[in-house]
Amino acid sequence: MKISALQQNRYEYKPKLPKILSEKLETIGIVQSGATKSVGDQEELKKLFANTYGKPVVTFTKGKNPGIKKQLRVGVILSGGQAPGGHNVIAGLYDGIKKGNPASKLFGFLGGPSGLIEGSYIEIKDKLIDGYRNTGGFDIIGSGRTKIETDEQIAASINTAKKMKLDAIVIIGGDDSNTNAALLAEHFLNAKMSTQVIGVPKTIDGDLKNSMIETSFGFDTATKTYSELIGNIERDANSAKKYWHFIKLMGRSASHIALECALQTQPNICLISEEVEEKKMTLRQITDYICSVIAARAENKENFGVILIPEGLVEFVPEMKTLIAELNDLMAVKAADFNALTSFEAQRQWLAQNLSKASSEAFATLPEEIAKQFLMDRDPHGNVQVSRIETEKLLISLVDSKLKSMAKAGTYKGKFSSYNHFFGYEGRCAFPSNFDADYCYSLGFTAFVLIASGFTGYLSSVRNLTSPAKEWTAGGVPLTMMMNMEQRHGSKKPVIKKALVDLNGKPYKAFLKNRETWEVKTSYVFPGAIQYAGPDEVCNQPTQTLMLEKGSPSAKSAKAASKAKSQAKGAGKKASGKK
Amino acid sequence: MKISALQQNRYEYKPKLPKILSEKLETIGIVQSGATKSVGDQEELKKLFANTYGKPVVTFTKGKNPGIKKQLRVGVILSGGQAPGGHNVIAGLYDGIKKGNPASKLFGFLGGPSGLIEGSYIEIKDKLIDGYRNTGGFDIIGSGRTKIETDEQIAASINTAKKMKLDAIVIIGGDDSNTNAALLAEHFLNAKMSTQVIGVPKTIDGDLKNSMIETSFGFDTATKTYSELIGNIERDANSAKKYWHFIKLMGRSASHIALECALQTQPNICLISEEVEEKKMTLRQITDYICSVIAARAENKENFGVILIPEGLVEFVPEMKTLIAELNDLMAVKAADFNALTSFEAQRQWLAQNLSKASSEAFATLPEEIAKQFLMDRDPHGNVQVSRIETEKLLISLVDSKLKSMAKAGTYKGKFSSYNHFFGYEGRCAFPSNFDADYCYSLGFTAFVLIASGFTGYLSSVRNLTSPAKEWTAGGVPLTMMMNMEQRHGSKKPVIKKALVDLNGKPYKAFLKNRETWEVKTSYVFPGAIQYAGPDEVCNQPTQTLMLEKGSPSAKSAKAASKAKSQAKGAGKKASGKK
Repeated sequence: MKISALQQNRYEYKPKLPKILSEKLETIGIVQSGATKSVGDQEELKKLFANTYGKPVVTFTKGKNPGIKKQLRVGVILSGGQAPGGHNVIAGLYDGIKKGNPASKLFGFLGGPSGLIEGSYIEIKDKLIDGYRNTGGFDIIGSGRTKIETDEQIAASINTAKKMKLDAIVIIGGDDSNTNAALLAEHFLNAKMSTQVIGVPKTIDGDLKNSMIETSFGFDTATKTYSELIGNIERDANSAKKYWHFIKLMGRSASHIALECALQTQPNICLISEEVEEKKMTLRQITDYICSVIAARAENKENFGVILIPEGLVEFVPEMKTLIAELNDLMAVKAADFNALTSFEAQRQWLAQNLSKASSEAFATLPEEIAKQFLMDRDPHGNVQVSRIETEKLLISLVDSKLKSMAKAGTYKGKFSSYNHFFGYEGRCAFPSNFDADYCYSLGFTAFVLIASGFTGYLSSVRNLTSPAKEWTAGGVPLTMMMNMEQRHGSKKPVIKKALVDLNGKPYKAFLKNRETWEVKTSYVFPGAIQYAGPDEVCNQPTQTLMLEKGSPSAKSAKAASKAKSQAKGAGKKASGKK
Repeated sequence: MKISALQQNRYEYKPKLPKILSEKLETIGIVQSGATKSVGDQEELKKLFANTYGKPVVTFTKGKNPGIKKQLRVGVILSGGQAPGGHNVIAGLYDGIKKGNPASKLFGFLGGPSGLIEGSYIEIKDKLIDGYRNTGGFDIIGSGRTKIETDEQIAASINTAKKMKLDAIVIIGGDDSNTNAALLAEHFLNAKMSTQVIGVPKTIDGDLKNSMIETSFGFDTATKTYSELIGNIERDANSAKKYWHFIKLMGRSASHIALECALQTQPNICLISEEVEEKKMTLRQITDYICSVIAARAENKENFGVILIPEGLVEFVPEMKTLIAELNDLMAVKAADFNALTSFEAQRQWLAQNLSKASSEAFATLPEEIAKQFLMDRDPHGNVQVSRIETEKLLISLVDSKLKSMAKAGTYKGKFSSYNHFFGYEGRCAFPSNFDADYCYSLGFTAFVLIASGFTGYLSSVRNLTSPAKEWTAGGVPLTMMMNMEQRHGSKKPVIKKALVDLNGKPYKAFLKNRETWEVKTSYVFPGAIQYAGPDEVCNQPTQTLMLEKGSPSAKSAKAASKAKSQAKGAGKKASGKK
């Protein structure tokens, strides 16, 4: 098998660990808080999680842990969409387990949670894990989106765990997968089984975070990869001075990715879904806003720019949200009728009769190409696949029309030419940044300590992330603490609360403070490709979001600090071409 | 102005120069070959370039150059599409000029060749150039696509050069821009002017190369950036195991970019336009080929893959080439008739009456969305804008239909779900790789030596590029040597011959040797992001294309060499996270 020079090189990287995790295992003591509460619906959740509700928060600190070296059999699952660093979670877990007891075993379930249901797994050994250290992707064991929900699936999972004599299962996943982990922990206890369940917070979307989880892994690398590309495009736009680039960014529910990329690259416009929802902005208002910026820049003879668009935007625009909901409801009951229609024209007429007047009108405003995307490729539940809607093209089309009418009215005198982009798959499997490599390895190692210390229904938690890695803290958070009840597919279900962009939070405020400047005055920043070697400020910085949220001093004057450091350390010399 | 940590860091990078260019300037001697000939149409070109035809090839070597320190006034132009390293060409030129004589001046024409025509320029000084060293983009002075062709444009250029008392003009551009440079050199001599003209070979497309030009600058960085993204997507495909990714890559005429990326990333399919043309493959045959690979992989339960598509593909498919030519001819004479049609249906009917039967049928096979792209957004000459045609979506649509019929016939049993991507603007303005940073700086410095040594009508030439930079050779090639006569817009014109992918060349042969394996057996390679610091094999490797063409030993066993080096040097240690 041929591997790249960088991959070979990354094998050599030794991820940094919090100091406590580098200590002798028997000295990793456990400190427990008082009982915890869920973020909402405490009474209902207490009933649903009779065994695991209310557990304390756990922090590792210098102390005693006499049982930590016991022999273990652990299974690990990669669940849901890829995020850079997944392999390092497994590596940290593996190294922890083997350090605890060389006779302990780690098994990887193949293809996601279905591997547990079907009992499909492999044992992870040195040779295998060494080929995946510090690399991107989930290809070591594959991933999948199956949920362990039905009684049959739960019974099958219990059966596999029993057969394999598993002491624990680690589920690496996002909010849904960790909700699943919490349920599984509870089911195992109900079945009088000793198999523990530990979750690990994964998602490039960045929406699995709260008071105890500072960030989900993968967000750092993915946003840096997208920012590399956005910066390159900004530089191109500013060189050619003739195109507007509309860039859609992955991130279905929350706009964290778009916001972080905006803070890194300072584009002319970045739409934030949460703001659109808060202000109940219609597509027309969004279009008007974009056009006002384009017109203002045209006044300065700058007929170019860059616009960031979060993937989930259409779901936050009131009239589109309603349209999508009506389409989903309609297809749930009348799919057969709809599927019998053979032309788009027939579909359009049928919809005009079956949708509400408002939604019918909203649908009519869509360009045909986009309208078709609302109808095609529905998911297995018949739902509109929002990720397949080319929102970036929709906006281009609306903006183009509006600018033409503005030109006629004399309120716009520029030239408008555009390109559209969508970045998502480009960043989910990048080689993890040093930050994600370190963070993930620490999360995996922490999961081992939680297991060896007897915890279940916990999420691996590594905190204080804006400080150097050795100052990070490690421990566990009860999964139930992050849960509330939400309406899903027609019934109330326990779920981990998603963290949307907080419109009162520091990252959004920092964006808001600069937005009007960036709109008109070209202020692009070009982050470049992720670097793995070199001075700290080049290869070991966390995201702007994290620095702002944690109030790190470096966020306050990142530029000054970076410059000072680089000068003080003579850092550039290391990277120079001198031989 | 806020700048990124990497940008700050790259300012410190000292580009490597060929040994001869590091010597004292007065010792850079000139060796000249015998008279040269153009690659074709010698008699016609001899007449057209009475002053500059047949000049010798120039090589710098240890010797004497007494006049090199004279005071100079030089103008520089960035022409055409962006390519990583343009700023370093200017930096190398600037540093050379100032080293020669601190009183010499460098002027940058703004917005491309139109800056020369309009006399729009700025003086480049230390502070300005220092803000652009080792960065991507052409934003230091902007670029443009204006050609200096008409008598008025030539007169205006002569006028500017006289007014500014320019000793020389450096044109950084692709084949067209350098054809322009050759003509300008000739015009200046005809006008009894002493202003010299030197070209610099730029284009990410890689199609400006020949016996004396090993590669154009920017190709290295752009292909590495695209390969980073392709590798990430391959890893994603191999993790999720459910999508086929159709990736179109910039490169209008030649498929060098697609081929280089294929050699770097080993995708399942890479279409090569030159092969499609050679074999006169129809869209149907291309579709059948893709479907055969998809079906073969489905047999192995691998319902995923990655397909690379060169941007210019449709122009190499015989029936599409004819269709495009007919559309261009038709629009040239009947644009008014066509533009009066208001619906696509009306346009379709009108075309059915005005195109040949074959082209009419070819047009009818196109999905409506794609068909519209053949008609919209025509360029100022009324030509179809091939770069706007979403070939990747066209192929997805054709493949999807074909697979459905294969499924009915029982010859395909897989699942097909796809995503489309287009990478172009993402790579044209990346921070130049160390290779491009060094190469461009050397090209700029070489341009200075050519100017100071009195040459005109030359292309800056730095060779022996697969060896370490200090072993590179430098000199100049007469632009006329690379020219022949070609039909352009209805008349024969002198042009620099474009280098398409050579189907007998080593890079294509290397691809061919592996193609059948890569189709069925997942053999992905993940190059990762461009690295600027670290061991040689990670951050100082030239392209596979260059290594194969030059027969470098490292190309023959790149893997073994890389591994050996990394072990021998303990290279990984530098990049490790130890502090």
